Amino acid sequence: MADTPRVVIVGAGFGGLTLAQSLARAPADVTVIDRNNFHAFQPLLYQVATAALSPADIAWPIRSILKRQKNASVLMADVTAVDADARVVHAGPVTVPYDYLVLATGATHSYFGHPEWASVAPGLKQIEDATAIRRKVLMAFEHAELTGDIEEQRRLLTFVVIGGGPTGVEMAGAIAEVAHHALPAEFRRIDPHAARVILIEAGPRLLPVFPEDLSSYAEQALEKMGVEVMTSAPVTNCDEGGVDLGDTRIEADTIIWAAGVVASPAAEWLGVEKDKAGRIKVGPDLTVPGHPEIFAIGDTAAVVDAEGKTVPGIAPAAKQMGKYVADVIAARVEGRPAPDPFRYRHQGDLATIGRKAAVVKLDRLHLRGFIGWLFWGFAHVYFLIGLRNRAIVAFTWFWNYLTYQRGARLIVDSKASQKEANKDRVQREAAAVDVRRKSEPSAKRSAGADWG
Amino acid sequence: MADTPRVVIVGAGFGGLTLAQSLARAPADVTVIDRNNFHAFQPLLYQVATAALSPADIAWPIRSILKRQKNASVLMADVTAVDADARVVHAGPVTVPYDYLVLATGATHSYFGHPEWASVAPGLKQIEDATAIRRKVLMAFEHAELTGDIEEQRRLLTFVVIGGGPTGVEMAGAIAEVAHHALPAEFRRIDPHAARVILIEAGPRLLPVFPEDLSSYAEQALEKMGVEVMTSAPVTNCDEGGVDLGDTRIEADTIIWAAGVVASPAAEWLGVEKDKAGRIKVGPDLTVPGHPEIFAIGDTAAVVDAEGKTVPGIAPAAKQMGKYVADVIAARVEGRPAPDPFRYRHQGDLATIGRKAAVVKLDRLHLRGFIGWLFWGFAHVYFLIGLRNRAIVAFTWFWNYLTYQRGARLIVDSKASQKEANKDRVQREAAAVDVRRKSEPSAKRSAGADWG
Repeated sequence: MADTPRVVIVGAGFGGLTLAQSLARAPADVTVIDRNNFHAFQPLLYQVATAALSPADIAWPIRSILKRQKNASVLMADVTAVDADARVVHAGPVTVPYDYLVLATGATHSYFGHPEWASVAPGLKQIEDATAIRRKVLMAFEHAELTGDIEEQRRLLTFVVIGGGPTGVEMAGAIAEVAHHALPAEFRRIDPHAARVILIEAGPRLLPVFPEDLSSYAEQALEKMGVEVMTSAPVTNCDEGGVDLGDTRIEADTIIWAAGVVASPAAEWLGVEKDKAGRIKVGPDLTVPGHPEIFAIGDTAAVVDAEGKTVPGIAPAAKQMGKYVADVIAARVEGRPAPDPFRYRHQGDLATIGRKAAVVKLDRLHLRGFIGWLFWGFAHVYFLIGLRNRAIVAFTWFWNYLTYQRGARLIVDSKASQKEANKDRVQREAAAVDVRRKSEPSAKRSAGADWG
Repeated sequence: MADTPRVVIVGAGFGGLTLAQSLARAPADVTVIDRNNFHAFQPLLYQVATAALSPADIAWPIRSILKRQKNASVLMADVTAVDADARVVHAGPVTVPYDYLVLATGATHSYFGHPEWASVAPGLKQIEDATAIRRKVLMAFEHAELTGDIEEQRRLLTFVVIGGGPTGVEMAGAIAEVAHHALPAEFRRIDPHAARVILIEAGPRLLPVFPEDLSSYAEQALEKMGVEVMTSAPVTNCDEGGVDLGDTRIEADTIIWAAGVVASPAAEWLGVEKDKAGRIKVGPDLTVPGHPEIFAIGDTAAVVDAEGKTVPGIAPAAKQMGKYVADVIAARVEGRPAPDPFRYRHQGDLATIGRKAAVVKLDRLHLRGFIGWLFWGFAHVYFLIGLRNRAIVAFTWFWNYLTYQRGARLIVDSKASQKEANKDRVQREAAAVDVRRKSEPSAKRSAGADWG
């Protein structure tokens, strides 16, 4: 074992990165392992998914963030196992020894026992999820413009978002803006105004962590934007063609999952107890029971803090845990007494609905509408990493605000297999259309080119 | 057949798009068909490939460009065949009838009879080529940081660019900047300064279309930046492990092809005569021989103009052809006499080498160095489509210039199969490393974490 204690952090999300940075002056060798080479600013992923921002606007290379921190190294690799007896992490091709290990591996989508829904209802946790959803949403309009079948156009232009938390509200609002403001002037056969955006929530109201007045404001604001909100509507089935809510069927080409998350498999690596969301139940100092040298933070950890508060799975909580664990490790390394048990300070809740509308709850202060939106915008730009990104995001938002444009509206399709699948599907549909066309002319909306 | 003549344009590159826009006031229905939903500014693709810009910075949705042009429709589909007798284009699921057809389908890479080199030496013609090369270049550094094998590190950090035209010169210069300026502070085990960037040209000098003084300036400037330039060095083989130049072998992980192009298969669609680069030999009015209603422009066409000048395959030439064909079609539709045969006006040649260095030839004026670079930068920002893109590109460049940063340095890997292939390869290599490690400690450059 080396003389300088080795701290290995798995995951460079909000928790892992804050921890690494908080150890900058500690006498420790810090290694950050992530399967991506970048830290993504997850709260703005939905803006990439809806073509307002580019991936590079909300993500920053981890190496770049840590380049001046001399005691930090970065390793781009997939962690596959932890050997707690040997105190090593297996990360793709390398084996990384540790004295302290921090698991900050985040969460992924949970389909509540229906893993088969994952392929038809993608979630939004990673940059690649966002670009896949962007492609799916934009291709729905392109396919609708190509097909002559009115029924199929209707299905292609129906967008279902499942889950009425902040991500679902943001996605539904943003898709409505794309359909009703950014695209209408650009299509000649279809009318993007006619697109349906449906937000489905199993519980009785949207944004359950917010107070009721803000929930009902959000619902009204979304409906004003043209979103159909369905509450107390649990989804019973998702498939390629649409969504079932008990006996009600909604035919839809695009289904987006924002309903639930489950922790990454860090608990399995250690064989320790987890809660029903897959999170490791950590002790008051955020260590894993039975492993005083292993910590879990952020969405990987189920935490009830020193005051009995259940800590929510949001970015500020992950950052506070990262900072706290850095203090614990630094104290141990330097032989100081351990800090007091972890206390979570809730700073507030923010959710945006669309242009000029957001809800903000800070202690007893409730903001909504344009003021809420301004607050939300400043807070997000402020917390973005890197001056360049802040400036570009601010500029891009201002520009989008003025023009309703969505500059990042490129369909860049690297998933060759998906492309082929889509192509085949459209060709099959089109073959059907061609046959019908010969006997009955289809209704056309505009005087554009008469292809088909 | 409709009363308003139908003009179908296949391809929304510089030629096709200029043509569509030039027909804005003509009494014609214009349909633009492209397999992508965006127009890419090809001259800056190498900046996406080397992580200076994001795809959305140099590409713009075709629908957005044409949305105010009421006589234009856009169709996102792959053209697979033309039926010149029936006067229809087969585009994926739809059949598009035309009165005038313009083929502006551009070019792709030519491997001079070695199609098997395509998979190991990707070229740079499309946005997806650029993101694939970016991923490949950045992953080479990540893999080098992971492996403990010095030989393998050397191979991973060798970048070969084949072809000494403007694209090859730009790529080699940009990779050298990434390796020698952007990355060195960010790695702990490898020294990106040690990366070799080799530019290989079969002919006797770089930039053969430029005058000799600018060619030799470019060679010196590249060498000053740390690029090894090899001229009169024809490549005899490319494979996964490197490049052969006759008896000389260069072991390299990244090989980029910038050596030759061949026209897209438009000539085959029509069964007409083509030159050895696959281009359709068009008449003086840019029509396809035997088909007065079909035109070919840009890289799809082999053109000798009215003054006997061979028209080069560059963006300004494609735009001039687009504008000319719009005049020809408008004259026919309006019953006016046909314009004079096409005349090409050469405006100059530009190539950039790197920060503060470019070569410019405008008539008798030769610019180089910083002045050349400023001219190049202004010209490219000026010609970028869309005010937003211009401003963002200008801002991003200025920022990169000040900081040597490369903001778009994300490895976003949608090609699952490629990811797996890479992972397998690294794991195989690493397994070999692990075995050796047990008997002999490897030389390490820095005091970073001692993983592996």
